[in-house]
Amino acid sequence: MERKIKVGITQGDINGVGYEVILKTLSDPHILEICTPVVYGSAKVAAYHRKALDIPAVNFNIITDATAADANKVNLITCVDDDVKVEIGKATAIGGEAAYAALERAAVDIEAGLIDAIVTAPINKHAIQSEKFDFPGHTEYLERRLGQGHKSLMILLDDTLRVALVSGHLPLSQVSGAITKEVILEKLQIFEHSLKQDFCVVKPRIAVLSLNPHAGDDGLLGTEEIEIIKPAIQEANAKGLLCFGPYPADGFFGTGHYRQFDGVLAMYHDQGLAPFKALAMENGGNFTAGLPIIRTSPDHGTAYDIAGQNKADEQSFRHALYLSLDLYRNRAFYKEITASPLRKQYFDKSGDKEVLDLTTDTDKDE
Amino acid sequence: MERKIKVGITQGDINGVGYEVILKTLSDPHILEICTPVVYGSAKVAAYHRKALDIPAVNFNIITDATAADANKVNLITCVDDDVKVEIGKATAIGGEAAYAALERAAVDIEAGLIDAIVTAPINKHAIQSEKFDFPGHTEYLERRLGQGHKSLMILLDDTLRVALVSGHLPLSQVSGAITKEVILEKLQIFEHSLKQDFCVVKPRIAVLSLNPHAGDDGLLGTEEIEIIKPAIQEANAKGLLCFGPYPADGFFGTGHYRQFDGVLAMYHDQGLAPFKALAMENGGNFTAGLPIIRTSPDHGTAYDIAGQNKADEQSFRHALYLSLDLYRNRAFYKEITASPLRKQYFDKSGDKEVLDLTTDTDKDE
Repeated sequence: MERKIKVGITQGDINGVGYEVILKTLSDPHILEICTPVVYGSAKVAAYHRKALDIPAVNFNIITDATAADANKVNLITCVDDDVKVEIGKATAIGGEAAYAALERAAVDIEAGLIDAIVTAPINKHAIQSEKFDFPGHTEYLERRLGQGHKSLMILLDDTLRVALVSGHLPLSQVSGAITKEVILEKLQIFEHSLKQDFCVVKPRIAVLSLNPHAGDDGLLGTEEIEIIKPAIQEANAKGLLCFGPYPADGFFGTGHYRQFDGVLAMYHDQGLAPFKALAMENGGNFTAGLPIIRTSPDHGTAYDIAGQNKADEQSFRHALYLSLDLYRNRAFYKEITASPLRKQYFDKSGDKEVLDLTTDTDKDE
Repeated sequence: MERKIKVGITQGDINGVGYEVILKTLSDPHILEICTPVVYGSAKVAAYHRKALDIPAVNFNIITDATAADANKVNLITCVDDDVKVEIGKATAIGGEAAYAALERAAVDIEAGLIDAIVTAPINKHAIQSEKFDFPGHTEYLERRLGQGHKSLMILLDDTLRVALVSGHLPLSQVSGAITKEVILEKLQIFEHSLKQDFCVVKPRIAVLSLNPHAGDDGLLGTEEIEIIKPAIQEANAKGLLCFGPYPADGFFGTGHYRQFDGVLAMYHDQGLAPFKALAMENGGNFTAGLPIIRTSPDHGTAYDIAGQNKADEQSFRHALYLSLDLYRNRAFYKEITASPLRKQYFDKSGDKEVLDLTTDTDKDE
């Protein structure tokens, strides 16, 4: 039997809805049929949330080392003191430290090959900041910590749509200045490689959105399309990438044009994420592409406003977990099929080095 | 019997899909049961498109004056020379002039009370520019031409969602600079009044979106929320408007939160329109609120790339037409019910000026 994939699950911020969506997902016994979960957190904090929410319990197999993970149990590695203070719905320094401790331990373990993928519960970007964690979010931290020099790319996806962003967590006033030909080209290359490696698309087609309304309307509403985005697409095409656009975002999503592409590169956060989430609803997941490791997450945050009230929907977290399994398998498959490709086949005829013409009908004499 | 509403329909750009969606909509004989259409254009250009598209004919009643409109026919006022040159899929000066002539004639007629509403087919913003028409689009032209000093507000809507914009056709790099407390407040007031007057919402609830991702994340991703948007909402609340937010656009549309509001005020074009169109698909319509006249339009452009190919969907144009009728009726109803309101009722008891307590159970002795 194929070895089950070991998925590390980080607790995230202990005062938000993280444990709620983790527990709701892991309390389904079928989860053990498809993977071996290893939670990085605290059984006591989990129990605290379970009681507050009045939801079914999860029997954790407490281990001290990921090598001891039992394939038939929900494993848990204790990363924080059991007397850590939970303050539901509040951003606290303790909550931030706890989130960091779990994330760092999971990073150590995936680097050592003890787990196969990481699914992260949401953190609070303010609470987690410290000397050790000085990043806007998970993505940037993992890029630095485990990227081995590779650049990451956030991809949001559901069954019909994969959206990546050229610029991410930036004030809107800084977006235009952050859009350069080089960065678009870089993102396109990471995106294309990930679509091949992680989604098994043989020759991905990528749509590029415009920065300005109506794709700048021939320069009337901005010149970035003419000066930056079109040249970037042309250069990508010259490198053999199938990139198209730039398309105005509203019409692109309104007409369903996005269904004709394997990926959509948006210029900035709300342009890509607002229509994506409008279409994906609870079915969206988030994947940090471009890195040597697999990391996914739900597409929501700590949601302090509904924490501890049994109102959080675990659907997106479950999708993120399933997604990590699919991505791990796809990447292993891609590695296998590209490991030692067959040599190009030539047809040896009359001693000529003539290339085999596959368009010739060899049966025409029959 | 109630008089049928006279709807002026302007031909828009004669080289785009305008006539296609007009003819497809008007060739349904049921249209005459609900309104009296008056097309501003050219029967010959219409016939040219009909032949090229191979779609059913519309029998036009050619009139020279809107007063002669026959309630049982599709009327047409000739606004351009019959030998005007059509070049399908091309932006031409002739096409721009023809679009302008039809629009201006409809403006004259609605000002004179000869028609009740205008539905505009799309124009090409480049082709129509001239000494007489020096505006980014229909909205700005109609505001100047027929606004009587009132400011307009574009509202995009379908059955579940009404979206208006603080800034419209602007390069993205200029959006942040265009967002001021005053302009947000102005748009909120126009929006609220329109929701009452045109949509018969007694006390409208309006959601305001944030400018920056994650609503600025407490200032980490931009300060406009703290310095501009929140104060604008507070001031609107102080004036008695029910305004809420600012909400991050992605979560707002992703969780379906928009269903709890009568209107959504987005900060800029793609933020509002990309998720709106993703959700509305072909069912969206566009309404120019705030003006003394009713004007609606489909939510697509001239679509030169598919012009003349019988590929255009008339659904949005039909919605725009229906919408103009609903809005006209609602506005008339609102005018009627607010024309001479009853005086506030006081209960005269023992000579006191005591206010009537409606919570008292007057039948308690029975």
